[in-house]
Amino acid sequence: MNVFVVGVGLIGGSFALDLKELNSNVIIHGIDINESHLQEAMELGVIDQKSSYENLSLADVVVISIPVNAANEVVPRVLDAVHEDAVVIDTGSTKAPLCELLVNHPKRRNFLAAHPIAGTEFSGPSAAHVGLYAGKTNIICEVEKTAFKLQERALKIFSDIGMRIRYMDPKSHDRHIAYVSHLSHISSFMLGKTVIEKERNERDIFDMAGSGFESTVRLAKSSPAMWTPIFQQNKENVLETLDEYISNLLLFKSYLEKDDFQAIFSAMESTNKIKEILNGIVVKPI
Amino acid sequence: MNVFVVGVGLIGGSFALDLKELNSNVIIHGIDINESHLQEAMELGVIDQKSSYENLSLADVVVISIPVNAANEVVPRVLDAVHEDAVVIDTGSTKAPLCELLVNHPKRRNFLAAHPIAGTEFSGPSAAHVGLYAGKTNIICEVEKTAFKLQERALKIFSDIGMRIRYMDPKSHDRHIAYVSHLSHISSFMLGKTVIEKERNERDIFDMAGSGFESTVRLAKSSPAMWTPIFQQNKENVLETLDEYISNLLLFKSYLEKDDFQAIFSAMESTNKIKEILNGIVVKPI
Repeated sequence: MNVFVVGVGLIGGSFALDLKELNSNVIIHGIDINESHLQEAMELGVIDQKSSYENLSLADVVVISIPVNAANEVVPRVLDAVHEDAVVIDTGSTKAPLCELLVNHPKRRNFLAAHPIAGTEFSGPSAAHVGLYAGKTNIICEVEKTAFKLQERALKIFSDIGMRIRYMDPKSHDRHIAYVSHLSHISSFMLGKTVIEKERNERDIFDMAGSGFESTVRLAKSSPAMWTPIFQQNKENVLETLDEYISNLLLFKSYLEKDDFQAIFSAMESTNKIKEILNGIVVKPI
Repeated sequence: MNVFVVGVGLIGGSFALDLKELNSNVIIHGIDINESHLQEAMELGVIDQKSSYENLSLADVVVISIPVNAANEVVPRVLDAVHEDAVVIDTGSTKAPLCELLVNHPKRRNFLAAHPIAGTEFSGPSAAHVGLYAGKTNIICEVEKTAFKLQERALKIFSDIGMRIRYMDPKSHDRHIAYVSHLSHISSFMLGKTVIEKERNERDIFDMAGSGFESTVRLAKSSPAMWTPIFQQNKENVLETLDEYISNLLLFKSYLEKDDFQAIFSAMESTNKIKEILNGIVVKPI
């Protein structure tokens, strides 16, 4: 099986490594706009050979894992290049703009819109590792628009690498993911920014920071090149989540200003139920 | 050595376990307002015997690890009860109010104001574990006000359990800790609240949440009984951090509204340096 990975970073690279582990007949062809990433992916054994768009007619499966703005350029181009029996899987964090863009593409049936919920704050080929996807959720949008036998091929792969599947329409995906992923990134980046600005002249103050701070600002290590286009494409939903988040912070501030500590206690207590919710999402290998 | 632990939760209980591990001559006496916690601490072997304020005259060391509002009541009472050669160590997350309260206490020299940066989102005796303090920072305030030989006794213990020491005045402690700890908790609690409110009728949406969300809302599992008095005691500093955080969120929102994606990219890119800062604080056993 010829698998082309376009964008050999955490997502594409880990996909490649899992496929190679599962099936010795898989050949991984890497394509990346960043030549040094491609070289690194070769050296790390993430891909078997460097390739280019010209060779895409060989592909049985194409996994596209690049920033979402680039995906809007690349996915149509890849669809144009593949043969009739190839499945082209996009893995970006927004789904509505790309699905809309492809609605009338002559090879729409070769396309599968996916979002594996497996990103971390790390990126690039060196971040790729076997087992990233075990127990994680893969959200698939508009599955009915993908040719049935190509759905089957893709789902078999997702199942083999240990993923749970959820089906969702692209607009719902983008609305919900704004809350459970995009807003977390903004909250984390702005927390990091606030603390860095304040403490810029007192670097050693970070000695005072514990694991709680580390956890809360973890996502502020994420790649701006990946995240800027996500916020751009999901602007309206992200603005809504930001408004609600800021409202809650202002409410907390007003409680504090009024010395209404009962209200502060209650707000925290009712939010503690996040424990049970998180217990439900804690990732376990299946 | 008779060590009294007042408040047998994560902080006090882990302290007890480390001391018992290091020195078989240590007897841990537990005091807790919550009788079921005290019983649990006995059953878990965190303490050797249940005790009460009446027995404090036996103490060589007292560790007080209770909510900061309760500490303001309890620490003076404990100081009144101990003998002249006992050291009373408070471990709360605010230091200025307690230090001010004790400034003229006749046994001020028996008191050591500390803040071990070792808290997690877990609490209670079952959260206590050996090794919690290894490689962590302990902030000590107004060390010069503690009798020298009692400083030595306390510092020997902190060193034995693997802690690094930083000295700081109480007001600086409270101002900086508002940024690197208290604000993180608010940001996390309000993020959890925002998402729960939005998604309350769609619980299964949390299937979409990945490790990034989990990390960012981790602190929203923390105890409201512990955190409400911290926000109360550090109100002015916390309000300042909140104002700056909200300003940064509003700025991000205005960039998004204006489609100024270059500004969004730059804000994220400059915050990425949190990576190096975090590398400096990552906790390693020493």
